Amino acid sequence: MANTTGTDYLVKGAAKRQAIFDTIPAKWRLEHPIPPATEVRDVTGPYIQQYLSEREIQITESDAVDIVAETTSGRWTALEVTEAFCHRAALAHQFVNCLHEVFFDAAIEDAKQLDAYFAQHKAPIGPLHGLPVSLKDQFHVKGVETTMGYVGWINTFEGKPNDPRRTVTESELTKELRNLGAVLYCKTSVPATLMSGETVNNIIGYTWNPKNRFLSSGGSSGGEGALIALRGSPGGFGTDIGGSVRIPAGFNSLYGLRPSAGRIPYQGVANSMDGQNSILSVIGPLAPTARSLELLFKSVLSQQPWLQDPLALELPWRDDIVLQTRELIKRAGNGDSTLAFGLMRYNGAKIHPPIARGLDIVEQTLKRLGHRVITWDPPSHAIAHELGGRIFDMDGGTDIRHHYGLSGETKAAQVIVTENGPEITASALAALNIGKREYQKQYMDYWNSTADLTGTGRPVDGLLCPLAPHAAVIPGQYGNVGYTSFVNVLDYTSVSIPVTFADKTMDLRPGNASDTKFDHVEWDYDAETYDGAPVGIQLVGRRLQEEKMLTLAEYIGGEIAREVAMST
Amino acid sequence: MANTTGTDYLVKGAAKRQAIFDTIPAKWRLEHPIPPATEVRDVTGPYIQQYLSEREIQITESDAVDIVAETTSGRWTALEVTEAFCHRAALAHQFVNCLHEVFFDAAIEDAKQLDAYFAQHKAPIGPLHGLPVSLKDQFHVKGVETTMGYVGWINTFEGKPNDPRRTVTESELTKELRNLGAVLYCKTSVPATLMSGETVNNIIGYTWNPKNRFLSSGGSSGGEGALIALRGSPGGFGTDIGGSVRIPAGFNSLYGLRPSAGRIPYQGVANSMDGQNSILSVIGPLAPTARSLELLFKSVLSQQPWLQDPLALELPWRDDIVLQTRELIKRAGNGDSTLAFGLMRYNGAKIHPPIARGLDIVEQTLKRLGHRVITWDPPSHAIAHELGGRIFDMDGGTDIRHHYGLSGETKAAQVIVTENGPEITASALAALNIGKREYQKQYMDYWNSTADLTGTGRPVDGLLCPLAPHAAVIPGQYGNVGYTSFVNVLDYTSVSIPVTFADKTMDLRPGNASDTKFDHVEWDYDAETYDGAPVGIQLVGRRLQEEKMLTLAEYIGGEIAREVAMST
Repeated sequence: MANTTGTDYLVKGAAKRQAIFDTIPAKWRLEHPIPPATEVRDVTGPYIQQYLSEREIQITESDAVDIVAETTSGRWTALEVTEAFCHRAALAHQFVNCLHEVFFDAAIEDAKQLDAYFAQHKAPIGPLHGLPVSLKDQFHVKGVETTMGYVGWINTFEGKPNDPRRTVTESELTKELRNLGAVLYCKTSVPATLMSGETVNNIIGYTWNPKNRFLSSGGSSGGEGALIALRGSPGGFGTDIGGSVRIPAGFNSLYGLRPSAGRIPYQGVANSMDGQNSILSVIGPLAPTARSLELLFKSVLSQQPWLQDPLALELPWRDDIVLQTRELIKRAGNGDSTLAFGLMRYNGAKIHPPIARGLDIVEQTLKRLGHRVITWDPPSHAIAHELGGRIFDMDGGTDIRHHYGLSGETKAAQVIVTENGPEITASALAALNIGKREYQKQYMDYWNSTADLTGTGRPVDGLLCPLAPHAAVIPGQYGNVGYTSFVNVLDYTSVSIPVTFADKTMDLRPGNASDTKFDHVEWDYDAETYDGAPVGIQLVGRRLQEEKMLTLAEYIGGEIAREVAMST
Repeated sequence: MANTTGTDYLVKGAAKRQAIFDTIPAKWRLEHPIPPATEVRDVTGPYIQQYLSEREIQITESDAVDIVAETTSGRWTALEVTEAFCHRAALAHQFVNCLHEVFFDAAIEDAKQLDAYFAQHKAPIGPLHGLPVSLKDQFHVKGVETTMGYVGWINTFEGKPNDPRRTVTESELTKELRNLGAVLYCKTSVPATLMSGETVNNIIGYTWNPKNRFLSSGGSSGGEGALIALRGSPGGFGTDIGGSVRIPAGFNSLYGLRPSAGRIPYQGVANSMDGQNSILSVIGPLAPTARSLELLFKSVLSQQPWLQDPLALELPWRDDIVLQTRELIKRAGNGDSTLAFGLMRYNGAKIHPPIARGLDIVEQTLKRLGHRVITWDPPSHAIAHELGGRIFDMDGGTDIRHHYGLSGETKAAQVIVTENGPEITASALAALNIGKREYQKQYMDYWNSTADLTGTGRPVDGLLCPLAPHAAVIPGQYGNVGYTSFVNVLDYTSVSIPVTFADKTMDLRPGNASDTKFDHVEWDYDAETYDGAPVGIQLVGRRLQEEKMLTLAEYIGGEIAREVAMST
């Protein structure tokens, strides 16, 4: 399929990179490139604010819940909100390379129509009326293309030249967001193949971490993570097959939801290794607050996606579970021991000191609140990691080789799947599926068994554990993806929760280096480079427990923030 | 793996057949074999009743709902109910070869314990207290083995010799039925491989149709169909990957539910081609009445199978859907046009006259009730049939070859999957999964589009169509399985509904043979042999619509019976 040779792909990638830049209005282009990371490490907060008006800052630093409170009541217009986020997103891209598609003109037109609707009906069109929402560059949006980071997809539909669907078709979620009143204005960067915890491709280059530009924004929804960290978006949708929502959420101090398969519609979304159905990629939101995730998730379910996507489950948002969970939280606040959590520090891959400290903060928080904390001793996560790896490699790289071959580009070092392995047979795949199901059953039995330890009469309400062995990572040094991928093997619900930031003055080897309680910590790490890197953890719940996990994530995230504030 | 040669398997199969017979108490053995089918075609009703007491007849001809009304209130003991069904099941097996395992002694012990529980607590142990329930021979039950029709599985656990799980482990559903108070007493016959619309194997031979012993009881849950038709069981559980619950239900004048995947737990159940996850086999109940299906299905869901089976969905029984559906039915009875149905007579494979007449009865019934009937014109069912066949053949017969090879037995002619084909690769399988998903989407879009035709403001409430091209079939003459397998490709809900019986005096070519409206009917069929064969149809609903479909099936089935009664 390779119809180009040598470094043509670099030329094509550069042309597309320039075309993206050219869609940014001239008024929002930087006069000079920003200084290097050695001079300005953190471009969030005050750094980006210097380019914005007070009003733009007020709007863009409101969360999605507060924004829709204004836009659905007519106090803020969709237009002013949209323009503010377009401006801030334009800056974000120029700071850290986080956008693949920019369509501010269309967004502004849509915003005007929403305002006209409101003026006429004195009511919003839906619960997301006037809310800008960013989308990972797997979602099709009319008027723009989808490259998914492949140079070979430029000017095609998913790599197919002359396909009439190009720039015309929309993914089901895209349509539902429009029905809800959301304003679509940009698509965010991904690593080609999507199978990486960093975001790098031959179009935009590397998506840097806004809190620390020496580091990665994570992946594969790395553009979402970086854009939202800079408040260039109040929330957006990524996808997660091995951690690709949770990693960029964690690397950018955000909340991110990995729902179980079947809740958010994947219909009509571009993907890697499409048709692999042993571990399904799922769509989930990322945002600065947990309640923003709930707003986005719940709004999508109100569209009844199961009537449009054959893989979506008929499972509306369950308010009763939210209310039950809030009741447990309330009783916990009154001193009852009503909630219990598993805590897992280590899956066999050593963690960096900032992660170890983050886990300490989590444990202190839970203990302060009086919740029972169970040391988590589940079926080995190494088994899940191995199963995941074999499933991701089932086609021996056939799919990614094809798409790389369209332009002649080569695999980035950070991509975790094989490019040239054997394809497995239907029987071998069936054996993997059995192995996965048996692992799921063992894990379920283990989870159930914790009912004997919690004192609540129930198994643990959730598991708290790292998202990665390290904070937002140094390029090329991503460690064990098993910290996230076990959730995908289990098809469990997980929410990333921000905890703290790496600190070179705190994250050091303790005096008593021989203390075995630190045997799982990798002290030999680059404390200087990691300084300032966001540290997140994840709250993991059973399958299809999104309502409960989002409610608990808001509560625990808030209490972790309070814990951190109290200790500083 | 073949450690036997020649016809050893016949000897082993015969020994097991004798062992099954030997577990029938001497008092219930027939003195003489029953006469051949040429003399006694129909062994249901009066024929089997001659062997039973009035009390046994009263008990065994009550449906599951009426039985539990008696047993959960203490008016009938579990013991007398169990003994009555054991007796009748023993007769059924001697008439038509429908049992693989007989464990009446254990059942009677269990029944005594249930009675003791009731005596002590003045309350039933669960909603199925004292109800005998039969199980297809895929479910593991302690104390007995599972052969699944393979000679090579005799004295093994799923073909593995010396496996400690043999006769010890129980399937999740088995455990849940015990929790609910059900009494387990027998396991029913299947075709080896399960991939057949007839039930034949080298252990019990052929499972005949009780209404017409020249014909098949259907498959693969053919033992369930035959046993329940003879009222040797008030209800049981089969499995369905291409029609294996609905076909034996239809061939035996029963109701049968094919739920969508994930509702009834499959955990710990023996299967063919385990790990094939493109079209999942599902478990569903069969019974003489629709309300019995509801009782069994709803009771299992009350056990929260999603906490024990990783593939089960957290989706409790939804009474609100039942109430909404009943309201629609009630309004329809008051003359409102509140319900609409699709009607499909033909998928490209010609149907026999009894099926054509059955569809006429269905159409007359719906029109009498004032419901809108839409001629069904969906995406070609031939595509679904083709997809299903390719998915079922994905391993090229590797699995079934292995299990046949354990004993040296050979494939029955009725088995629809290949024994010696190529294994497909992971990429080819991914392409099939995409093809399946696209077909599901097209079908979903078609279903949605009927909202423009129904006049109810909604798409059709269900689709009525044949289960097979013929009534209960002449051995070896099973036609196109596509009449059922499209439902499995779509993962839709379907309920078999009894309609009528083949009648050699009525199911004849009409005077005007050139009338094109009969072009889809195969007039050249054996009217004499088919005379008396049950004719069923299926009511198909969207995915995960079990509550609505069971409610509608009870209504429509009752009205069809009324229609038939009015016309005779």
